[in-house]
Amino acid sequence: MTYRTELNQDIAHLGNVELLTPQPERSLWYFKDVLGMEEVHVQGGSVYLRGYGDYAASTLKLTAAPRAGVGCISWRAASPEALQRRAKAIDSTGLGLGWSDGDFGRGASYRFRDPDGHLMEIYYEETKYRAPDALRSTLKNLPQKYIGRGANVRRIDHLAVLARDVAANRTFMQKHLGFRLREQVLFENGQLELGSWLSTVPTHHQIAYVKDVKGASGRLHHFSLWVDNREDVLRAADILVENGIFIEAGPSKHNNSQGFYLYSYEPGGNRIEIYSGSFLVFAPDWEPVLWNEEERGTGVYWGAELPESFINYGTPDVTNAPSAPKSNIPVFDPY
Amino acid sequence: MTYRTELNQDIAHLGNVELLTPQPERSLWYFKDVLGMEEVHVQGGSVYLRGYGDYAASTLKLTAAPRAGVGCISWRAASPEALQRRAKAIDSTGLGLGWSDGDFGRGASYRFRDPDGHLMEIYYEETKYRAPDALRSTLKNLPQKYIGRGANVRRIDHLAVLARDVAANRTFMQKHLGFRLREQVLFENGQLELGSWLSTVPTHHQIAYVKDVKGASGRLHHFSLWVDNREDVLRAADILVENGIFIEAGPSKHNNSQGFYLYSYEPGGNRIEIYSGSFLVFAPDWEPVLWNEEERGTGVYWGAELPESFINYGTPDVTNAPSAPKSNIPVFDPY
Amino acid sequence: MTYRTELNQDIAHLGNVELLTPQPERSLWYFKDVLGMEEVHVQGGSVYLRGYGDYAASTLKLTAAPRAGVGCISWRAASPEALQRRAKAIDSTGLGLGWSDGDFGRGASYRFRDPDGHLMEIYYEETKYRAPDALRSTLKNLPQKYIGRGANVRRIDHLAVLARDVAANRTFMQKHLGFRLREQVLFENGQLELGSWLSTVPTHHQIAYVKDVKGASGRLHHFSLWVDNREDVLRAADILVENGIFIEAGPSKHNNSQGFYLYSYEPGGNRIEIYSGSFLVFAPDWEPVLWNEEERGTGVYWGAELPESFINYGTPDVTNAPSAPKSNIPVFDPY
Amino acid sequence: MTYRTELNQDIAHLGNVELLTPQPERSLWYFKDVLGMEEVHVQGGSVYLRGYGDYAASTLKLTAAPRAGVGCISWRAASPEALQRRAKAIDSTGLGLGWSDGDFGRGASYRFRDPDGHLMEIYYEETKYRAPDALRSTLKNLPQKYIGRGANVRRIDHLAVLARDVAANRTFMQKHLGFRLREQVLFENGQLELGSWLSTVPTHHQIAYVKDVKGASGRLHHFSLWVDNREDVLRAADILVENGIFIEAGPSKHNNSQGFYLYSYEPGGNRIEIYSGSFLVFAPDWEPVLWNEEERGTGVYWGAELPESFINYGTPDVTNAPSAPKSNIPVFDPY
Repeated sequence: MTYRTELNQDIAHLGNVELLTPQPERSLWYFKDVLGMEEVHVQGGSVYLRGYGDYAASTLKLTAAPRAGVGCISWRAASPEALQRRAKAIDSTGLGLGWSDGDFGRGASYRFRDPDGHLMEIYYEETKYRAPDALRSTLKNLPQKYIGRGANVRRIDHLAVLARDVAANRTFMQKHLGFRLREQVLFENGQLELGSWLSTVPTHHQIAYVKDVKGASGRLHHFSLWVDNREDVLRAADILVENGIFIEAGPSKHNNSQGFYLYSYEPGGNRIEIYSGSFLVFAPDWEPVLWNEEERGTGVYWGAELPESFINYGTPDVTNAPSAPKSNIPVFDPY
Repeated sequence: MTYRTELNQDIAHLGNVELLTPQPERSLWYFKDVLGMEEVHVQGGSVYLRGYGDYAASTLKLTAAPRAGVGCISWRAASPEALQRRAKAIDSTGLGLGWSDGDFGRGASYRFRDPDGHLMEIYYEETKYRAPDALRSTLKNLPQKYIGRGANVRRIDHLAVLARDVAANRTFMQKHLGFRLREQVLFENGQLELGSWLSTVPTHHQIAYVKDVKGASGRLHHFSLWVDNREDVLRAADILVENGIFIEAGPSKHNNSQGFYLYSYEPGGNRIEIYSGSFLVFAPDWEPVLWNEEERGTGVYWGAELPESFINYGTPDVTNAPSAPKSNIPVFDPY
Repeated sequence: MTYRTELNQDIAHLGNVELLTPQPERSLWYFKDVLGMEEVHVQGGSVYLRGYGDYAASTLKLTAAPRAGVGCISWRAASPEALQRRAKAIDSTGLGLGWSDGDFGRGASYRFRDPDGHLMEIYYEETKYRAPDALRSTLKNLPQKYIGRGANVRRIDHLAVLARDVAANRTFMQKHLGFRLREQVLFENGQLELGSWLSTVPTHHQIAYVKDVKGASGRLHHFSLWVDNREDVLRAADILVENGIFIEAGPSKHNNSQGFYLYSYEPGGNRIEIYSGSFLVFAPDWEPVLWNEEERGTGVYWGAELPESFINYGTPDVTNAPSAPKSNIPVFDPY
Repeated sequence: MTYRTELNQDIAHLGNVELLTPQPERSLWYFKDVLGMEEVHVQGGSVYLRGYGDYAASTLKLTAAPRAGVGCISWRAASPEALQRRAKAIDSTGLGLGWSDGDFGRGASYRFRDPDGHLMEIYYEETKYRAPDALRSTLKNLPQKYIGRGANVRRIDHLAVLARDVAANRTFMQKHLGFRLREQVLFENGQLELGSWLSTVPTHHQIAYVKDVKGASGRLHHFSLWVDNREDVLRAADILVENGIFIEAGPSKHNNSQGFYLYSYEPGGNRIEIYSGSFLVFAPDWEPVLWNEEERGTGVYWGAELPESFINYGTPDVTNAPSAPKSNIPVFDPY
């Protein structure tokens, strides 16, 4: 199940995630005023944002849409040659969609869909962010001033998507994009692959595939933003509640990944994680950690179980909302 | 409901809590090796312990007993005169038990029971802790070296006891010991007093009375130990789980008191809180904060609800549930 | 040296500090935008502010003035009777200035000067802060919403003033206001009292008197604002530097008080501390901790010594600025 | 100055550092009891240790020797082929020393010296650590139980070595081992290369070369161990001081690397850093950040300057100790 031959590390990192939102103004308020991201560009029905520690011009694209969900997931290649190699490999699978000139701040991009239908692209050319005077940091190695507004997330970290067939998508990412497998939830004596965590670099995971229990396709489980310390996650929880944002789970600690998590729903309905902790994987021959029913539990290392909505809810929501999370904090209704 | 006239602050602080345990050796291991307290004395069936920041010779007494629960709760008076005043006031209620020479490290003590039957005493004379060379801190204002063993709790903070009639006990503490009311959970339009938090100093509460839903008397809800930062509470959670200690709830944040909590069961069965955060009350005319059904919820500010055991379980356990909590993570049912 | 007889605790807490600033607009920016305090009132040449955790209408008054320094230091009495008692006691010393109607949010106030000439007042009646809808917290026991703006200090904590004769002022506070002595720096075999830390409640100190090495009178050493965790102090350091504020010392840990400190100069020139940690003193018979030359060092527990400016600089500055701190961060010149 | 062509990432990570110590027992006490590392093996005059988060059998080798300093620095290759490629490349430089069977827990190793004479080796085969029952974690993805003993460092992070000619060594690591340049201190209009930070993975640096101001060769500046949060670094400072360990600098924050540092000397005299924070570099086309005299200062982002000893002292010490750090904490004399 390890597809690593002497594959170059062709995918450098997650470059940009596009989120679809039926509440574009309120979603913008959430990411900008509550989470402290910076708005850098507006184009069409989309607003482009970034975290103060992201080196790229933009790492989050918010796009107005009838329903919540994930739009295009963009990966940066490690070199022009790596981009060509990956495009060629994907093209051979029949899942390629072809080249575009690239979205804001990026050059030529090769688009494709993963087997579950999530839209993705790979690019190499990237415009580095140059802060305007008012946002220039006193730290020469920090792309943008640390403002101290709201939760003030540092950078994008990873995303988790839902899929009908986790194994098929996981295999695709391993074989054609060079991802390495980090951890897996395998139930029914290893026959049911419920989740797989993958990365191309020492960060624990850049993408996770999780079983879509509703049997839909192309959906998002969550998108994750990094803060530097667990204390920052706790602080973020205060800020979310003070702003009337529904907290679904956490702050607490996962068993798999050891991530310190805080899940809330942005006003458009997408699940957003504020995240710290976890661990780096340096071993080139890392043996994927496997979790069965008993070991996994609901995925927490401490205290309270994750709520049912954590399993049942994704975006776009595909039910008449019977699994809709209930909050007694005065909040939004994502449906 | 505020009984404060120009009463002197006669009770200086919670001095010592005696915990009863049917597992004395394992309880000692929990407080000493896992929580990092120091053993200072052994006498009869009891072991005396302290936190590195406690100034007194001992602040926790562990006593072997057939069943878990709380033994004697000791309060230090602010002066010899204050001790006499409180003894006299309590004597007038008929709940006094008379004077003793005092337990380890303490002088003459006046014993009594609160209306619910919890054994308490007040004393003034106290032997200050003098660290042996090996435990002397490099900080002249710290009674004992910070060892960095396990969760390394700093000092005792407060306790919560169960009572059939919260109002009667709360009133007793206000009228005869000078406690001030900080917060209350009042259900049924204020007619049902479920919990009251009380203090004689700016720390938020030194004792809480909580409705005993089993209708028993003299029981303990939890005993609480302080660490200086929320990050220390998170660290403690890791240490508890690594030591196979059952975590009932947290780390998370209460709405009332704003306390950052972590509840586990020591091997004898008593609920122990590792605690930080909360806030100091400086206002001499503090208006007690009242929480009704809707505002209170289960008492959490963030995320997961507190489990039912948090309401139903106290020590000694009064069900047919040989009370012993079962550990080793995949969890216990206390009933 | 302990003047405590059975004195009531007549002083409840530090109520308000008035800071004088020759840069009123920039000082307001510092406290509001950088430290996250809330502006609540404007009157004459003064702006009134508060921390989100302060229960009173205002706790900091910024007043335009030709030179930096401290204006009136206001203490809240524990009761109307306590106010009368203290006024009478102070009146007997000849240092009383008489009654006023009280500043914004406060009732009748008795004004006086300490022996060194610092202007002070005591009051009892206080208007509690009622947050407007936009600033109402989701926590019923929190006076104001936690906004997450800048360093977002929670409340005022204490102040340190300079004095020609520390002993005379310390004695005055003990005898006539009921302060208790916590720690002292005594050099030359105890003959030279360089600093004394005092409080009327379990918080370590509400005021400190420190030797004015310039031999001036009525000056301020620093005013201190509380954050809940040491991590918040570290975060504040980032925010200060990003805003071009000169950091004089810290974040680091004092030996005396165990306070975790961060000293910066607000644009008007006054030294401001962002502060956490320290410890509570519960012992009614606390023995003051004494530090001699060797034990004290420069007052740090870890690492770097405090700079000379920490000893030499106070406000108003009384030199031609030979002791002016130098910064290599592009910053303001307070002279 | 960027030597990256389409070089494979052949060096996976820093595998093991050997420290030489004239105080082997006290050095072992420092790493084991104070820092919380685990002793796993003894062989010859060496003791092998590891952090609880290290996946390998051992990551630190302590060897008794007449003088402090660094012994062999071991790098793990990303694959058997990578190992061969690097051995061949280094062999061509004339700096190769040939193959050995490998030290404890490792397979065939290719030894060499960097241009400054530091002994290094590369290996691929590695015995993964399998915890004995008593040290097995409740987390399936954690190699070893989190004990909570002392500072409890998680894993080794990086090292900094001194060199006569920084440029020559930096170039060697870039060209022949595939390191990428992250930051540089360049004085005298870019003519004097004082320090260079290098990595083969997204962690900021795995090795730094710093100018040896004494003109010696083969010396160590510091070896660095990771903890997960800045609060853990602060806690470590308390633990070090309580154990009489001299703290040279910190806890504080560097400007270059943004590392949150705490430097102490282990009893043998080697400078050890307890480290957190910093940032990950994901950009494949990262532009090295250059610091000149003015920008660099002494290398701190906040507060106090680094002491002179930070520049002057390395191991083995080559002076009659004129630059010996002075401590006012009762401590050891490394000379």
